Amino acid sequence: MKTKTIALTGDRPTGRLHLGHYVGSIKNRIELQKTADEIYYMVPDIQALTDNSDNPSKVSENVIEVILDNIACGVDPKKTTYFIQSQIPEIAEMTVLFLNLVTVARLKRNPTVKSEMQQKGFGEDVPAGFLAYPVSQAADMLFLRSNIIPIGDDQLPQIEQANEIVRKFNSIYGEYFSELKPLLSETKRLIGIDGQAKASKSLNNAIYLSDEDDVIAKKVMGMYTDPSHIKVEDPGKVEGNVVFTYLDIFDERKTEIDELKKQYRKGGLGDVVLKKRLIQVLQDLITPIRERRHKLEKDKKAILKIVQKGTEKVQKQAKKNMIEMKKVMKIDYFN
Amino acid sequence: MKTKTIALTGDRPTGRLHLGHYVGSIKNRIELQKTADEIYYMVPDIQALTDNSDNPSKVSENVIEVILDNIACGVDPKKTTYFIQSQIPEIAEMTVLFLNLVTVARLKRNPTVKSEMQQKGFGEDVPAGFLAYPVSQAADMLFLRSNIIPIGDDQLPQIEQANEIVRKFNSIYGEYFSELKPLLSETKRLIGIDGQAKASKSLNNAIYLSDEDDVIAKKVMGMYTDPSHIKVEDPGKVEGNVVFTYLDIFDERKTEIDELKKQYRKGGLGDVVLKKRLIQVLQDLITPIRERRHKLEKDKKAILKIVQKGTEKVQKQAKKNMIEMKKVMKIDYFN
Repeated sequence: MKTKTIALTGDRPTGRLHLGHYVGSIKNRIELQKTADEIYYMVPDIQALTDNSDNPSKVSENVIEVILDNIACGVDPKKTTYFIQSQIPEIAEMTVLFLNLVTVARLKRNPTVKSEMQQKGFGEDVPAGFLAYPVSQAADMLFLRSNIIPIGDDQLPQIEQANEIVRKFNSIYGEYFSELKPLLSETKRLIGIDGQAKASKSLNNAIYLSDEDDVIAKKVMGMYTDPSHIKVEDPGKVEGNVVFTYLDIFDERKTEIDELKKQYRKGGLGDVVLKKRLIQVLQDLITPIRERRHKLEKDKKAILKIVQKGTEKVQKQAKKNMIEMKKVMKIDYFN
Repeated sequence: MKTKTIALTGDRPTGRLHLGHYVGSIKNRIELQKTADEIYYMVPDIQALTDNSDNPSKVSENVIEVILDNIACGVDPKKTTYFIQSQIPEIAEMTVLFLNLVTVARLKRNPTVKSEMQQKGFGEDVPAGFLAYPVSQAADMLFLRSNIIPIGDDQLPQIEQANEIVRKFNSIYGEYFSELKPLLSETKRLIGIDGQAKASKSLNNAIYLSDEDDVIAKKVMGMYTDPSHIKVEDPGKVEGNVVFTYLDIFDERKTEIDELKKQYRKGGLGDVVLKKRLIQVLQDLITPIRERRHKLEKDKKAILKIVQKGTEKVQKQAKKNMIEMKKVMKIDYFN
């Protein structure tokens, strides 16, 4: 018998989504809709509270925004079940139970936690919930018994952490959970329009899926290219040139791009021509998304209904799975 | 309007209960039944798993045992609502949410955690669930909005930790939780029959509420008294003499005890006379408890029914309270 493929994905509800999210995860989701038996999209609102506990409104307001972005892109509620993490008590139950299976030292060694702790300047004053979030992520990934986790390679340590919990759980209670397998996205992280390693909201260097045409144009026109490529006839560098990086990812006409690169390297091709081309490509991609988004935005209640229906479906499944897991753990008393 | 008094108590399900539990908490519960508006008795099975995760059967088997002990003593299911922690997902939900409001450093400074970590030889290899258990206890104490927490003074740091979480929560989300007030038990911890500071299962120096008459007699006959009180006519020491300590606590005839102390100090009173008296006192206390226990044991299904009914009642209340709390936290979306 073939095992059912169950995929779990999601975006942190801390702001509108941008092209980095699109190439890093949304495109993957749309592809997965063709092959996976079940796809779930979770809005991790509680996880977002781990470092936004002083600003809960930001999180709750963005829950609908990230869902809007995804539906507008084509992550279809008919194929993908949308739900909200905070509405599934079983995830918290699993988190609390899993906390017994991992040491504080191990959590501190988690590379993602470690680097984010450094970034945020936490020492021992790290909120306990922040240190514990790989455990909560393990619960996210395991409570629906999902077996496909589409992620970026920076998230691989979370899969490893979850699999350690799986092994520890199985060693105590008998073979129960299967180890998780990551599905790495083809496109590595998208660089920012300023040439910085990563397009992100906090660096203000991203193009949003909700950006208007003129905003897209303005952002592309300001893109970092080759600073020594001053006159049109100067030879220019393609590597590290953000316009080319974006064309490589978003422009399907690969042979034309190769031709343009050759020309640019030799000299005689201006940035403006390239930028106009990229503007067109990005507008062609974003305009229909934005327009669908505008339409969807007018009826936020309908979006809420979609998430509510999805959440109710997941609640039922989660309850069923938790009864089973508690039986395995011998903490079922009434069943 | 008078605030309703809601009390929460419970015993770790890691073994049968002994006289230390009786004087330290069970007596208090029986008293509280006369005055509190609502009394809840929680079996903290998940908390017990924090340091018994490798032996889950021990925990689950003892859930019914501790309830049997309490009912046999007179903690009356008609007045006290019995429930099991693991069956209330909202406690886990609150725990996960509260984890964001407390730092790892603060948890490590918690005196109870600190001393237990030393005792158990945990360093950084402490299970995350163990470090987090004061947060889970805060959730236990707050999810039913209880306001009377009967505890021993060694548990005061847990109340302080919970109240810090209350203040932090209120500072972010507005006045919502009230600070907890401890109700200290009159009798400090009961010393062991061997004279050690605390009667406990692990030290094997306790008299159990399920001990048979001959076992009680044997344990009392072996009690630590005054090692220099060898012949009957020798003067003896009352302080640190376990037999007198127990008589002080369990024998109501105070003037007779005062008389016996005088005689013992002077010399001319043998240990055996005193021990026989104590045996009688303890048998008078324990025999009816044990007999009720024997009767109750015959129908464990009835006990399970009692806990199930209580748990269902608490589940309803917990759900209602959680909806309210999520509204305050702005993570309610469908209500």
